Amino acid sequence: MLAEIITIGDEILIGQIVDTNSAFIAQQLNAIGIRVKQISSVSDDKGHILTALAEAKNRADVILITGGLGPTKDDITKKTLAEYFDVGLIENKDALANVEAIFLRLRGTLTNMLDVNKQQALVPENCEVILNKNGTAPGMWFNVDGKIYMSMPGVPHEMMYMMEDSVIPKLKATLKLPVIIHKTILTAGEGESYLAQKIEDIEDSLPSHIKLAYLPKLGQVRLRLSGYGEDAITLKQEIDTFAARIVERVGNAVIAQEDIPLEKAILNKMGANGLTLSVAESCTGGYISHLFTQHPGASKVFLGGGVTYANELKEELLGVKSATISQYGAVSGETVTEMVEGAVKHFKSDYAIAVTGIAGPDGGTEDKPVGTVWIGVSNGGKTQIKKFTFGNKRVQNIERSAISALSMLNTLLGENIK
Amino acid sequence: MLAEIITIGDEILIGQIVDTNSAFIAQQLNAIGIRVKQISSVSDDKGHILTALAEAKNRADVILITGGLGPTKDDITKKTLAEYFDVGLIENKDALANVEAIFLRLRGTLTNMLDVNKQQALVPENCEVILNKNGTAPGMWFNVDGKIYMSMPGVPHEMMYMMEDSVIPKLKATLKLPVIIHKTILTAGEGESYLAQKIEDIEDSLPSHIKLAYLPKLGQVRLRLSGYGEDAITLKQEIDTFAARIVERVGNAVIAQEDIPLEKAILNKMGANGLTLSVAESCTGGYISHLFTQHPGASKVFLGGGVTYANELKEELLGVKSATISQYGAVSGETVTEMVEGAVKHFKSDYAIAVTGIAGPDGGTEDKPVGTVWIGVSNGGKTQIKKFTFGNKRVQNIERSAISALSMLNTLLGENIK
Repeated sequence: MLAEIITIGDEILIGQIVDTNSAFIAQQLNAIGIRVKQISSVSDDKGHILTALAEAKNRADVILITGGLGPTKDDITKKTLAEYFDVGLIENKDALANVEAIFLRLRGTLTNMLDVNKQQALVPENCEVILNKNGTAPGMWFNVDGKIYMSMPGVPHEMMYMMEDSVIPKLKATLKLPVIIHKTILTAGEGESYLAQKIEDIEDSLPSHIKLAYLPKLGQVRLRLSGYGEDAITLKQEIDTFAARIVERVGNAVIAQEDIPLEKAILNKMGANGLTLSVAESCTGGYISHLFTQHPGASKVFLGGGVTYANELKEELLGVKSATISQYGAVSGETVTEMVEGAVKHFKSDYAIAVTGIAGPDGGTEDKPVGTVWIGVSNGGKTQIKKFTFGNKRVQNIERSAISALSMLNTLLGENIK
Repeated sequence: MLAEIITIGDEILIGQIVDTNSAFIAQQLNAIGIRVKQISSVSDDKGHILTALAEAKNRADVILITGGLGPTKDDITKKTLAEYFDVGLIENKDALANVEAIFLRLRGTLTNMLDVNKQQALVPENCEVILNKNGTAPGMWFNVDGKIYMSMPGVPHEMMYMMEDSVIPKLKATLKLPVIIHKTILTAGEGESYLAQKIEDIEDSLPSHIKLAYLPKLGQVRLRLSGYGEDAITLKQEIDTFAARIVERVGNAVIAQEDIPLEKAILNKMGANGLTLSVAESCTGGYISHLFTQHPGASKVFLGGGVTYANELKEELLGVKSATISQYGAVSGETVTEMVEGAVKHFKSDYAIAVTGIAGPDGGTEDKPVGTVWIGVSNGGKTQIKKFTFGNKRVQNIERSAISALSMLNTLLGENIK
């Protein structure tokens, strides 16, 4: 079962926004056994959209469309779909009720409702309306000549709710989908080729209905087993058996046996052991805190910390000695040691991370070029520090510092808990 | 002049990574007057890539390809390009020297260099090699039948350097590009339709070679004027005149007259006035700090702050009274007031932002459902607080809280500085 995602609108084509919708949709489809064959981003142009729909129909069974459903002149998806299917537009009662309810909630009255607002309830007459709980543009489901077309708003949270609540359940109910089971093993600290060599014989012994994918990303590699079959129980047993062999072989590099980010694996591990964490961030400037706190339940483990950009805050919040900074500099092993030990002490956490470095593009010296970063992790009793030399791109230095800090914390945790 | 971007590889199609490359490439192309007609993400499949190239050639003059240049079996872009152009592969000396230099730097010796490494220097014989300073896969430039094809690695930082250093200059030198001038006006706090109504007559009076685009995003709208012409000086004068009329009409909602994010506009404004900022983040968990600190030069304004997830840290770092939290709760106007005033005082900044709320999905009560967020901004003398009720998606609550906090700070700044 193949799908194509078509995103409509100039914002993506001019690079004004990054297309995060397609990744979300692709994940959701993959999880139910629908493979995405192509993602096409096209402009707000009738002819271009019609061509994209025709091309997609030849490649895919399911065509998911986002964008172009707003109330302005640029938004031509609905009209273009009506033309594509050669049908007219009709007003849908449920969609109109939804538009009115939203308008009423925002304005307190329907008096000033404009025609453009009402027109949000117009849909091609051959579609089934999928209600949009978060906006005025209805979703539209078409089942024509054995192909399914689903048009959704481009606003991410409107699309996300619609996918999870309506589209995925409806696809499962409508299509005969294979049983598909994924199992992901998250590893850190070893390269893709090293891992491939280490588990070569296990990979070679996989039956043809189970695939292994290597998914590398900044110091981490995800090993993902995907099984396709008809019986969920047998398939799950098979996958689990192979996964267990891989986990045993790869050993300490395994961080989690599920598809979660590194920081979430750390939160889970620390949470299960009743441990708390704080951070002292200089050059990462809040990014590590953000990584942890984006996850539900982070507060069980993550107490918080200091974003100590200014040296005065390193002293005030963490108790770093003024003499240490003036003698060794803010970016030094001595300072990062006092930062991380200060965090454990002042924030009363079991573990802490500290990072201080020169993210760039300015601030580098001959001794300490841009990209020089010191990272420390500590549990009060034991402190480990390390110097890194990254590149000269600021945003990447921040990301690489964060991932390296997480890896170091993970290693220290591994030495102390099972 | 039209372009198409083709990204090759399954990572995007399975939703494992978000395609940030295309947005970067699109921005770079737009800035030199090349419009992106379509972005296509296709799988590691020869037939599929050949079809995508043929389709793109019919739509565009410039075809930029990323991905599929690694050393593993999946990486078939090079072979497929050779087949598409019906040429053989040859070893390129410069590319080989680059592979060897990188190998030597990483391993200290060439002894263990494998055939797969050397094969990175093979390229289709009709291409011009564009050196990759950050990796072993060379860029490949083709100029065939009046169409330009440029194949780049998919690793973002390798592609980014290659675009900036080589591809953009080469496109400018090769193609006859129009003069294109953009001017962006960043506004906050007013909706797209309100703005459109307010400047309707100015928009109607634009000549046909100047376009106005409304680019809305989370509480902000960018108004972008794009002019196309032959004489840069005249065009710039024209655009500046229209921009000045729009700025005057829109008034206080104008935050910046350049294409920068809200937090960068705040940093610029505060920096120009010698003001400093600190933050006290609870539910935003470091995200606001991260927004500021991702920008070069942030340290001139941003001193840092506290990520005070745990109540103990709100007391310890910000001096919030224990009694305030127990009487009114951590998510309350009283607590956010003490947080923001505590930040100004303890972090010794001119201004501060504080945020405390229930990001969800858990932690809501009947009185304070998930999405309840209190935000405060202060300059010591004056404190403004506001309660927001967002939705129940954690990551979005964090983002919306951050943008709302930035808007409030911007308003307070506007009252105090010109």
